[in-house]
Amino acid sequence: MPEAEDEYGVRPGERAIELPARFDAGLYFIGVIRTPWKSRDECPKNPRESRESKAICTIEVAEPYAGALAGIEAYSHLVVVYFMDRARRDLVVQVPRHLGAPRGAFALRSPVRPNPLALSVVRLVKIEENKLSVVGLDCLDGTPLIDLKPYFATVDAPAENPPAPGPIHDD
Amino acid sequence: MPEAEDEYGVRPGERAIELPARFDAGLYFIGVIRTPWKSRDECPKNPRESRESKAICTIEVAEPYAGALAGIEAYSHLVVVYFMDRARRDLVVQVPRHLGAPRGAFALRSPVRPNPLALSVVRLVKIEENKLSVVGLDCLDGTPLIDLKPYFATVDAPAENPPAPGPIHDD
Repeated sequence: MPEAEDEYGVRPGERAIELPARFDAGLYFIGVIRTPWKSRDECPKNPRESRESKAICTIEVAEPYAGALAGIEAYSHLVVVYFMDRARRDLVVQVPRHLGAPRGAFALRSPVRPNPLALSVVRLVKIEENKLSVVGLDCLDGTPLIDLKPYFATVDAPAENPPAPGPIHDD
Repeated sequence: MPEAEDEYGVRPGERAIELPARFDAGLYFIGVIRTPWKSRDECPKNPRESRESKAICTIEVAEPYAGALAGIEAYSHLVVVYFMDRARRDLVVQVPRHLGAPRGAFALRSPVRPNPLALSVVRLVKIEENKLSVVGLDCLDGTPLIDLKPYFATVDAPAENPPAPGPIHDD
C-alpha cells in the first residue's frame, strides 16, 4: 500500500521514481547567497513577495569566478540561478499543501524536482568587489549559487503576459 | 605572452581560470530538445528572434520523468532550462565578436560559463504524451533538457522592464 506510506515523506497521491545511478553532468557551486531567512517557513513564498518586501540579499561570488562579473554594472536586473541543495529529487508527482491534489513537478515551482535548480529575476542594488546586493530572492541563507546572467525584458518576458492561474507558492 | 596565444581558442583579452578538480553537484539529463538547427550559425541569436520566427521545437521528456508533466497543460508559457554541453566552462572574461571588448561571463548570455545552463521562456503549443511542442527556443538540435517550470509573468517579469542596453546576442 505505497499510497498509505509516509515513511520517506511521501504523501498519498505522490509518486517517487528511481533516479539514474549516475549523473550526466556536473555543477560547480560558484558562490553563496546570503539572505535573512534560516528556515523554509521564514522565506518569502516567491520572488514577487520578496520584491515587495524589499529585503536585500547578498550574492557572494567565489574568488576564482569573480572576474566573470566584469561589466555586470551595466544591467539593472539579473537572472540568478541557484541550487536547492536540501530538496529531494525523486518525486515526479507531488501534492502541494496549497493545492491538495497531485500535480507533476514540471507544473510546479517546488524545489523538489529531478534537477533542483531555481531562478529569480533580481534588481541589482549595489556592487562591492565580489558581492552583489540584490532585491528579489526567496531562498534560504547559504544557498549555493550556480549562475548569473543579465536579464533582458525584451527577450525573457514574452509579449503575451498571461495572468497566473491561481495563487503562486513555491511548494 | 598568454594574450597572443590562441592555441585553446582564447582570444586576446580573454581570461581562462583553472576550474575545480571536482564538481559540487550533479545533473540528470531528463530529456532532449529537438530543433531545426544543426549548427551555431543556424540558431536564432536569442529566444526573441526564435519567437519571431515562430519555429516550433519539440521537447522530449525521457520516460522516467514523464509523470512530472501532469498538469502542465494549465500553463501557456514555460521556463525551459537546458545544458549547453558543447561549451567550454573556464573563460571568465570573454571578447564576444559583437562587442570586440572584454566582458565577464556573468554579464553575457554566452553559452561559455562555469555552469553552461541556459533558459528560455517558451509558448506551449501542443502536448502529445511526453512531447511538448513549443515556440521560443534558440538552441541546437539534441540539446539536453534539465528542467521545465511554469512561467508566471507576475513573478518572473519585474514590473520595471528595462530596455536592453544594446543588441542582444548569445555570444
